[in-house]
Amino acid sequence: MIRINENYLKLKASYLFADISRRVTAFQQANPDKKIIRLGIGDVTEPLPEAVVAAFHKGVDEMADAGTFRGYGPEQGYDFLRDLIAKEDFQSRGADISGDEIFVSDGAKCDTGNIQELFAGDIRIAIPDPVYPVYVDTNVMAGRTGQNVDGRYEGLVYLDGTRENGFIPELPGEPVDLIYLCYPNNPTGATITRPQLKAWVDYARENKALILFDAAYEAFVRDPELPRSIYEIEGAREVAIEFRSLSKTAGFTGTRLAFTVVPKTCMAYDSQGGAHSLHAMWNRRHTTKFNGVSYPVQRAAAAVYSPEGKAQSRALVDHYLNNAAIIRKEMTALGYDCVGGENSPYVWIDGKMGSWDFFDMLLSKAAVVCTPGAGFGSCGEGYIRISAFNSLANVQEAMERLRAVLK
Amino acid sequence: MIRINENYLKLKASYLFADISRRVTAFQQANPDKKIIRLGIGDVTEPLPEAVVAAFHKGVDEMADAGTFRGYGPEQGYDFLRDLIAKEDFQSRGADISGDEIFVSDGAKCDTGNIQELFAGDIRIAIPDPVYPVYVDTNVMAGRTGQNVDGRYEGLVYLDGTRENGFIPELPGEPVDLIYLCYPNNPTGATITRPQLKAWVDYARENKALILFDAAYEAFVRDPELPRSIYEIEGAREVAIEFRSLSKTAGFTGTRLAFTVVPKTCMAYDSQGGAHSLHAMWNRRHTTKFNGVSYPVQRAAAAVYSPEGKAQSRALVDHYLNNAAIIRKEMTALGYDCVGGENSPYVWIDGKMGSWDFFDMLLSKAAVVCTPGAGFGSCGEGYIRISAFNSLANVQEAMERLRAVLK
Repeated sequence: MIRINENYLKLKASYLFADISRRVTAFQQANPDKKIIRLGIGDVTEPLPEAVVAAFHKGVDEMADAGTFRGYGPEQGYDFLRDLIAKEDFQSRGADISGDEIFVSDGAKCDTGNIQELFAGDIRIAIPDPVYPVYVDTNVMAGRTGQNVDGRYEGLVYLDGTRENGFIPELPGEPVDLIYLCYPNNPTGATITRPQLKAWVDYARENKALILFDAAYEAFVRDPELPRSIYEIEGAREVAIEFRSLSKTAGFTGTRLAFTVVPKTCMAYDSQGGAHSLHAMWNRRHTTKFNGVSYPVQRAAAAVYSPEGKAQSRALVDHYLNNAAIIRKEMTALGYDCVGGENSPYVWIDGKMGSWDFFDMLLSKAAVVCTPGAGFGSCGEGYIRISAFNSLANVQEAMERLRAVLK
Repeated sequence: MIRINENYLKLKASYLFADISRRVTAFQQANPDKKIIRLGIGDVTEPLPEAVVAAFHKGVDEMADAGTFRGYGPEQGYDFLRDLIAKEDFQSRGADISGDEIFVSDGAKCDTGNIQELFAGDIRIAIPDPVYPVYVDTNVMAGRTGQNVDGRYEGLVYLDGTRENGFIPELPGEPVDLIYLCYPNNPTGATITRPQLKAWVDYARENKALILFDAAYEAFVRDPELPRSIYEIEGAREVAIEFRSLSKTAGFTGTRLAFTVVPKTCMAYDSQGGAHSLHAMWNRRHTTKFNGVSYPVQRAAAAVYSPEGKAQSRALVDHYLNNAAIIRKEMTALGYDCVGGENSPYVWIDGKMGSWDFFDMLLSKAAVVCTPGAGFGSCGEGYIRISAFNSLANVQEAMERLRAVLK
């Protein structure tokens, strides 16, 4: 008899975006004339940069000619892209990362979800709260947790993000082996300073722990004092894997390209204490279960790093950062405490009432969709996330409506 | 201390293609003037169909305009593609599959590798030999096997493919829960008849087993008596998941699009005997760990199903089938027993000596690269695989050279 992986039965159904969708649909049906403005999901709205589009077309044309056609490429990505990423995203910032430490993939969601396969089943895992649900769910599926009790899984070490710590959790009070960090943070928009990040790297080095650093929003960092990569911190090459994506950097949410950095100096251990290269293990996983990213998409991605592509991508991010600044300014003026909205596309707002109550109020009175913070973990209760991913006109109109409702 | 998944240590290093590459490189260096013809790896060589290229460009153009731009799409694929696949690949052949049973992905390698996550750790798995290495390796990584002893992993039930059974293994002599089948077969090129496939479906229904049916080469089936989908067999909707790909169908090895069919009637069981929908479980896995295929690639894929796209893709497959027929005819005329090469792009040849000896002979005397059958499992020893994926001129020249060497 074919039996299931019963860990799936522990998963709490992900009601967050389904719930939002249901409530928005009901509201629209009851108010068919109202124009709803969506500042909920973190999806980009602006078209691909021109340089990217031109390179994408060129890549497609190469596939149309027998002389330039490409079949299977290297699973890890073409060298033309890996070397460019290493140079532009890392070496240019003083981070010692080489092209063959870059693993190109079709999404950071896949990579952050799949990486846990490399580790033992009984490691101790530290998970921030609030948090992107993929980190938790993929470990539940793999059997590294117990049951969900009152919104938290048994067996995980939760790192609380609170107003008091500015949503930068303290180091864990008990030993942990694997640590998920995400900065600029989704959902809170909080950023981490170099000294704060160094404390985590030092902790990992002292405890032979590993940090999984999700830097999907690094392009939004404009403050030169803030790190954009964990490899800007001394010693991180030994204890950190970093996840990046072009989704928010260059509008690739529908085009799909991301990459994971696994330094060759990054080790994990067997039960006898023997050290094993995580680069070699991820390479084995990647080549066994993945066949590389679409060639024209890799050409499109390479154009993000051209002089034109860099300027155009920066303009895209500027657009969203401007929206974020408007949201933060308006909400602050209305008397709400905010985190994020600077060096980040997300504004995390203390709603001074239940997350879903605030969500319902904004929807019913202003026809504006946000995301209830409670959907990201119990520390998110009482907060909402407003996303800057929309047109300037829509953000301005949403803020006018909020002013009318909340003033 | 961060500890590794020690199952990775059981993996036999995959020397096959690395070994081939090393020997080919050494030969080329010693014979710089010789033109090597590669009939080894199963990678397509001909450009994308015109209709596909046109749709691909159109999809890219949509991403360049704010009015038509697409961000995150449905993880399972857009309905325009899922419905088309269901209609053209299944309903048109009498297989009762609906669009929402199609999960679009970026590769059959990913899907055949990831599907095992849905199942318990201690199920009994039947694996054909010879076989595509991904089925075995992904189960080794997940801990469903013991050590590798003399080329076979402890704990797996191997289904021997031999000259006597025409490389269609008999039903297992001991109970199994999960069965991997691939027809037309990689590497042997063998095809399965309806009665033969029905015997497997009946076995699965009687034993509450599940069949994972890899149909990546179904487009090469031209004999109307042969099944192209397992869902042409009565009862298969209850006991089979099917994997498809456009890689060989329409030249997508570098473009990347595949799909997995999980019928809603397909169940697996918990330890209490309770039935669970594999459609719901795969949907949970797919939405948690994957973010959908690039939008322009989905548009390109949809064009494969247009009248022009169908004709052009068929012409592509015809081209490779013609090559396969030439290879089979020549090798047969030279006195070699062959399987495949009809309704399949692979010709599986009894070399009448060791696989690697035959490989070395073809390389050194004819500068032709094949794949040693021993690389696909112990039942492959003594055989070689010749692939039809090349230009007609190269195949003809390779056969002339083989004639001179082997006659």
